[in-house]
Amino acid sequence: MSYFSFELDPALAADPVFDLHRHGKMTMSSTVPLASRDDLSLAYTPGVARVCEAIAEDETLYPDYTWTANTVAVITDGSAVLGLGNIGPKAAMPVMEGKSVLFKQFGGVDSIPICLDTQDVEGIIAAVKAVAPSFGGINLEDISAPRCFEIERRLDAELDIPVFHDDQHGTAVVTLAALRNAAALQGRRFADLRVVVSGAGAAGVAITQTLIAAGIQGANMIVCDSRGIIHAERTDLTPVKAELAATTNISGRTGGTAEALIGADVLIGVSGGSIAEDALAGMAPEAIIFALANPTPEVLPVIAHKYAAIVATGRSDFPNQINNVLAFPGIFRGALDVRARTVTDRMKVAAADAIAAIVADDLRPDAIVPSPLDPRVGPAVAAAVAEAAVQDGVARRTTVPVPAQAQEPLPA
Amino acid sequence: MSYFSFELDPALAADPVFDLHRHGKMTMSSTVPLASRDDLSLAYTPGVARVCEAIAEDETLYPDYTWTANTVAVITDGSAVLGLGNIGPKAAMPVMEGKSVLFKQFGGVDSIPICLDTQDVEGIIAAVKAVAPSFGGINLEDISAPRCFEIERRLDAELDIPVFHDDQHGTAVVTLAALRNAAALQGRRFADLRVVVSGAGAAGVAITQTLIAAGIQGANMIVCDSRGIIHAERTDLTPVKAELAATTNISGRTGGTAEALIGADVLIGVSGGSIAEDALAGMAPEAIIFALANPTPEVLPVIAHKYAAIVATGRSDFPNQINNVLAFPGIFRGALDVRARTVTDRMKVAAADAIAAIVADDLRPDAIVPSPLDPRVGPAVAAAVAEAAVQDGVARRTTVPVPAQAQEPLPA
Repeated sequence: MSYFSFELDPALAADPVFDLHRHGKMTMSSTVPLASRDDLSLAYTPGVARVCEAIAEDETLYPDYTWTANTVAVITDGSAVLGLGNIGPKAAMPVMEGKSVLFKQFGGVDSIPICLDTQDVEGIIAAVKAVAPSFGGINLEDISAPRCFEIERRLDAELDIPVFHDDQHGTAVVTLAALRNAAALQGRRFADLRVVVSGAGAAGVAITQTLIAAGIQGANMIVCDSRGIIHAERTDLTPVKAELAATTNISGRTGGTAEALIGADVLIGVSGGSIAEDALAGMAPEAIIFALANPTPEVLPVIAHKYAAIVATGRSDFPNQINNVLAFPGIFRGALDVRARTVTDRMKVAAADAIAAIVADDLRPDAIVPSPLDPRVGPAVAAAVAEAAVQDGVARRTTVPVPAQAQEPLPA
Repeated sequence: MSYFSFELDPALAADPVFDLHRHGKMTMSSTVPLASRDDLSLAYTPGVARVCEAIAEDETLYPDYTWTANTVAVITDGSAVLGLGNIGPKAAMPVMEGKSVLFKQFGGVDSIPICLDTQDVEGIIAAVKAVAPSFGGINLEDISAPRCFEIERRLDAELDIPVFHDDQHGTAVVTLAALRNAAALQGRRFADLRVVVSGAGAAGVAITQTLIAAGIQGANMIVCDSRGIIHAERTDLTPVKAELAATTNISGRTGGTAEALIGADVLIGVSGGSIAEDALAGMAPEAIIFALANPTPEVLPVIAHKYAAIVATGRSDFPNQINNVLAFPGIFRGALDVRARTVTDRMKVAAADAIAAIVADDLRPDAIVPSPLDPRVGPAVAAAVAEAAVQDGVARRTTVPVPAQAQEPLPA
């Protein structure tokens, strides 16, 4: 039953992007029959009352008998949407719907987009906590830094379901996967890589933390923000940047991106700005450059390749696309499967390693990450994440459910 | 892709109700293709950015290019669920999912169940306002009185989308439909009916208001709460009951249900209690009794029929089931179709009259309302509600979209 009619701007109606987006990109449906009185009496009153009573008596039945165990909310305040900035909750909705359909397509996760009518930190935290019982996980999306750090930290601490800001950790996981494979391809020892992260927003901070969790020495990393290298002497640092100053750049280097890059093996750009070609010249030979700003990379691949052996961007029209869709569907799939309480560093690193392993046997400088459409990625990430959750003791189930016959308990 | 496995209590696994409810009752899916890089670049980055920018520039495009225009949140705090009482948000979820799938089945409305982790009035209002941009309408559900009155009133005033507490207005609309047909069947003049409403909770208050809006004289109505007849001399009345005291029972009758029923043509029970047979004896001849408490009517039909010519209940196993599913899917369908800002009294009365009209040509004492499965009801209610919204000036569209060829402007 649909009564929609649209009196659309003819120019928009003829545009393939707008045509695709008419009425939005998703729908919900019943998974139970509703055709007879008997159907209604099972799915609704009076039958449903018995399920309600059972859950009221034993809350552990909740995930078994509702859709929530497979459902993730994609929640934004519209403050940092794609490269568009603070466009507000309504203009952000097409992105959140897109995220939701990708969750379903690549992770089998039911996902609901929620755009909040508040950009206040306390307001966002209160709203997410209020709706949290309705979901098995919370994917925060496109919330600007530094607000995103406190929002995620507080929600993760206060809720018993996974809370994951994709702009931080999704990007970090796929970046780590790509860097693992780039180092392997070059025969460089991963732990010894000297890495410069240009940009200390949501992605830059998470990438730095995740690379350290994966074995890179923080002492060998340098993070730059818009004012240059982050070091312990700076007095203008937010709490999160002050933490970075304490864990990275132990030699206390100062200056701008050019100074940071002297001798660096790896440049990871997540700044949204641009990096001058001169600065790249100081990097170590056979460097690795990930210029992830979208839609305009900090360095175009044609320039980056003058100084780097391996180049990645965030764009689908260049090789080596660092695309979060490789991470978030499988990460939540795995977390939901074992009903994890949170997403730990080990789960993120496991996700990255699973992504990297997909193409490990066929590495080429222009193929260090799988295609975002590769159907092997989601299940592989899910299995690795579920196992890591069990190992970290954050899973409510100690067996990882698998669809196949080979359903065995995990190694302890 | 699904990795679910369940280690269920075998007794529950063998129970048809619990078997049906495993994994919940709903799912979401994409309405756009996601199989190729081109698909991704239209539905997600970079294509989606153009839709976001267009909405940021012109917010009126929002309903055209997101799923929100067809999406209603079913929101509860779990404080008054079915006849089960305050069982909390998680135990309420199976009912909310049930409501959501009925919205889809009978109204074509996408619906999302949201169970709130707060029962505080201000907390509920803040949470609903925060998530409101994500939806085209808010169906409040199973929120206890008198909190529900303030919550609905404030949200309706502060939001520009329909806010509708189904336990109030859904019940009131179907009750009005049934009463219209009962009166017609008996040749009684509707406006002259002397009506007693037993119960002054969510449903009782809304039924009283809606019957008055439909033409019953408030002076001829009497409302009883657990302490007896509501009258102007009582000093224990909540603000909402004080309003009822001012608009009903002009003769100032006092006493209990028995006193209220003396000479009454109609008894509408929405108390959850029971009404003694003695009290019914004072009603006018050929009375009408709607005993709507669920699962146990205030009076069983076999007793009610001793005093009444027409009897209705809330149960599916007796004739004349007053079932909200006759109302809420079509009401929201109609409100969404014309993008109504609110649900007015005229829209509710129009919905009731449309429900009544479905069976008007074939009225029998045991068939005064359509079956909840009657596929004609949703579209008829939707069309009537949309037209009423236009007449009341609360519609953002002044034509009612219809699926058929006969798409004509409404009479002004």
